[in-house]
Amino acid sequence: MTSSPLRIGIAGITGRVGRLLVEEVQQQENAILSGGTSLSKDIKNASDTIPVFDTIDALIQVSDVIIDFTNAAITATHAKAFKNSDVAWVLGTTGIDEETQRLIREAASTIPVIQAANFSPGVTLMMRLAGELAKALPANQYDAEIIETHHRQKVDAPSGTALAIGESIAKARNVQLKDVKESGRDGVTGARKEGAIGFAALRGGQIVGEHSALFLSDVEEISLTHKAFDRRIFAKGAVRSAFWSAGKPANLYGMTHVLGLDPVQ
Amino acid sequence: MTSSPLRIGIAGITGRVGRLLVEEVQQQENAILSGGTSLSKDIKNASDTIPVFDTIDALIQVSDVIIDFTNAAITATHAKAFKNSDVAWVLGTTGIDEETQRLIREAASTIPVIQAANFSPGVTLMMRLAGELAKALPANQYDAEIIETHHRQKVDAPSGTALAIGESIAKARNVQLKDVKESGRDGVTGARKEGAIGFAALRGGQIVGEHSALFLSDVEEISLTHKAFDRRIFAKGAVRSAFWSAGKPANLYGMTHVLGLDPVQ
Amino acid sequence: MTSSPLRIGIAGITGRVGRLLVEEVQQQENAILSGGTSLSKDIKNASDTIPVFDTIDALIQVSDVIIDFTNAAITATHAKAFKNSDVAWVLGTTGIDEETQRLIREAASTIPVIQAANFSPGVTLMMRLAGELAKALPANQYDAEIIETHHRQKVDAPSGTALAIGESIAKARNVQLKDVKESGRDGVTGARKEGAIGFAALRGGQIVGEHSALFLSDVEEISLTHKAFDRRIFAKGAVRSAFWSAGKPANLYGMTHVLGLDPVQ
Amino acid sequence: MTSSPLRIGIAGITGRVGRLLVEEVQQQENAILSGGTSLSKDIKNASDTIPVFDTIDALIQVSDVIIDFTNAAITATHAKAFKNSDVAWVLGTTGIDEETQRLIREAASTIPVIQAANFSPGVTLMMRLAGELAKALPANQYDAEIIETHHRQKVDAPSGTALAIGESIAKARNVQLKDVKESGRDGVTGARKEGAIGFAALRGGQIVGEHSALFLSDVEEISLTHKAFDRRIFAKGAVRSAFWSAGKPANLYGMTHVLGLDPVQ
Repeated sequence: MTSSPLRIGIAGITGRVGRLLVEEVQQQENAILSGGTSLSKDIKNASDTIPVFDTIDALIQVSDVIIDFTNAAITATHAKAFKNSDVAWVLGTTGIDEETQRLIREAASTIPVIQAANFSPGVTLMMRLAGELAKALPANQYDAEIIETHHRQKVDAPSGTALAIGESIAKARNVQLKDVKESGRDGVTGARKEGAIGFAALRGGQIVGEHSALFLSDVEEISLTHKAFDRRIFAKGAVRSAFWSAGKPANLYGMTHVLGLDPVQ
Repeated sequence: MTSSPLRIGIAGITGRVGRLLVEEVQQQENAILSGGTSLSKDIKNASDTIPVFDTIDALIQVSDVIIDFTNAAITATHAKAFKNSDVAWVLGTTGIDEETQRLIREAASTIPVIQAANFSPGVTLMMRLAGELAKALPANQYDAEIIETHHRQKVDAPSGTALAIGESIAKARNVQLKDVKESGRDGVTGARKEGAIGFAALRGGQIVGEHSALFLSDVEEISLTHKAFDRRIFAKGAVRSAFWSAGKPANLYGMTHVLGLDPVQ
Repeated sequence: MTSSPLRIGIAGITGRVGRLLVEEVQQQENAILSGGTSLSKDIKNASDTIPVFDTIDALIQVSDVIIDFTNAAITATHAKAFKNSDVAWVLGTTGIDEETQRLIREAASTIPVIQAANFSPGVTLMMRLAGELAKALPANQYDAEIIETHHRQKVDAPSGTALAIGESIAKARNVQLKDVKESGRDGVTGARKEGAIGFAALRGGQIVGEHSALFLSDVEEISLTHKAFDRRIFAKGAVRSAFWSAGKPANLYGMTHVLGLDPVQ
Repeated sequence: MTSSPLRIGIAGITGRVGRLLVEEVQQQENAILSGGTSLSKDIKNASDTIPVFDTIDALIQVSDVIIDFTNAAITATHAKAFKNSDVAWVLGTTGIDEETQRLIREAASTIPVIQAANFSPGVTLMMRLAGELAKALPANQYDAEIIETHHRQKVDAPSGTALAIGESIAKARNVQLKDVKESGRDGVTGARKEGAIGFAALRGGQIVGEHSALFLSDVEEISLTHKAFDRRIFAKGAVRSAFWSAGKPANLYGMTHVLGLDPVQ
């Protein structure tokens, strides 16, 4: 290709995923790492060759697309900065509230935004297939349960990906996840409610991420399972999304668009 | 409903599935059990109230639809009998050769034929989803493996359902299953071939049937699993298919039609 | 054998397990069903041939051994009744508090008591092996997690069996389960604590009972899983325990004694 | 410690495990890497600082203990060289025939030999526990099945570790594995034989090694599973064995000795 290389910025460049993103971007032939943002003070020493900025605005000035795995507390600020910029936004931050999600949609009316709870191709497919199963299997016969396992350092439960799988099932059943969610079962819980979507969390070792969605009837069980063996998978998916965003019209996209999957009917 | 009850016949009425079909049909309000065929000599005593015929032709005379879980050796004879009858054929026999399959298609040009390797809704969905995964996940990155577990009496491997799942994957990848099948690994096998579809079989206890399809890349694994807890599930699916066949035009149908799933694109 | 048949009584004879116990006892050649107790008013009709008593004392009068799957609220009363009787007590009630457990031990000083959270041979072995693993695998390297799945009617979590497996691990590590238990993870939980024993519960369909104990290190995982396919397994184990109790000296026994396993070292 | 460092040699130093052993030995404070043997011609460039010898005899001259993950074809030669040396032998080569095993036992009459199919603590425990289960669960009620998954490059099936687990079960049942082994099920196999030990192999991705042993009865299933997440685990176990060998009397040892487990009763 004779086109000029894509300038990719990384918000949260010193975080766990940020460092993997640096490696991944630096391996691309048609991209340059335009810089990053970081709240960490150590960054000055760590990266004498990568420009690190104090604000997202400064990073926006030098980038074509920015990959953002930061913190839900800063996402509203980012959304306002991206709005009316001409920079695409690849957003992997989870735990976002409704008001912030509204700001993200506003930004997506002026630039392409690719938002996903999980950038691995396998998880994206799993969410989609969980929705298909939920559509085909009646909620009053098939109990949906989601179980996830993560490394011992993880501080929240259920995982953002588990919740996203739950959303996919709830949407297919035309219900709100918050109305049917059963998580953290402990003590006298009472019988399972019809139509409930259950969640359970295991923690241990250095498990990158395992998710299962089960549909249990009186006579059969059908389940989907995803296991990520290497955290690099998330960085790869985000960089793939960054390339895909080039030249796309303003809109709020998901990984299904990046993977070229047909829309769910 | 004021319509006259559906007359359902059962080919192989004294077999393992045949006996479950009897129970299932007898529980239906809008159906009557028109009779059966059997090679067993014990049938006379066993069923003084159910007419048992020596030939499929006799059973065809008294039925609107016939459910057939018999033996591949007799399927060609059945296909010829059904052709030009006005009776629908629900066919669950497996291990059918190409010439017989041609005869089944011929029959399906004159009557509705519903043919499936497995009549459970969960397995039908699993085959479909395995195909979707195979389409989305490149064969040179994702190794497909199928593992099944059945009760200790089962005499063949892999199971017909495992092979049908493999066919679904092969079709999505535009290959012939026979060209890429790796089954019965034992001894010095050499490395796995790119694009292969592997099969493994476990046998033990009274497991009704468990099937998993795995897609393994270097960095992730995505899998589908189905477990049947009760053999009754197959009888229920076949009877549901029999009702569905009423009034349908001549054609070769599968369980996806019965379940009302959209065609795979 | 020419010995007189064992007179087995069933406390809670109209409960879920009680009814299975009736069937199981009635199939034994060397036992007679001496009667039962029940809080249900329906019992009069249900069992014209089985004597049903209002009090455990009355049942004790006519029995050699009593199998008791009732309710923790009544166990203290039972313990006092069994004390100084000459009747053996097979006790499967769970959720028992410390004071009641003290009364059970007192009864066991005068009669043989066989107490277990789960009477299946497989679960008994699993508890034992979980203890062996916990002894061999250091708690600061191997994170222990227990996951269980049960039918949708179950009203409490974690299951009594899951807790008993946890006790077995805690004992092998010389800690109290209550000090290290992490159950019902939900929301911001913080990182996993070193030495914690985690619990998670799935609910759905008619699953009789599945339990897994996982030990997860940074580089490996070793796990034990038990699946009960049929509730009858618990009744069979309890009746086996009843026969085993005949002629045994007063003591508090567990299923490991009934199975003849060597004591854990 | 004031003792002189342990001189560890590595047979097969350029192999897959050999390279991990180099890293592992070089991280030890109380060991020096005395050298290696290799059939590869590339070794000269790869390791200017590590002496690589043409023969095992030369390596024996400069070592206190040699770790040997080579090839079954060369093990007989090694056994003769170790015999009457004063060097300990940590042997991880699998696929060894009976005559060679006899020579290994002869060597073990003059030096300490630690031989294992798998040097991970978890697998060692799993073999032991599989034996305990086999002892407690009657072979005519509980069908034993072993399933293993490995990376796509693996050229043989079942894995050496799977066979070793099978040996452990066979020994506990007082049978010879070769008399009861059912592997590579494919086509018309006939019903499962009573007392059989079944094997199945999956291949795909970069799975380091997963092994499960299942015991399936009509009413329950109990299983053990081990997953190795990192090949390094085998190198760590071998180096631990090398240290353990120091000062031990001549004998044929296994990983259970290294881990300090009680002998199986």
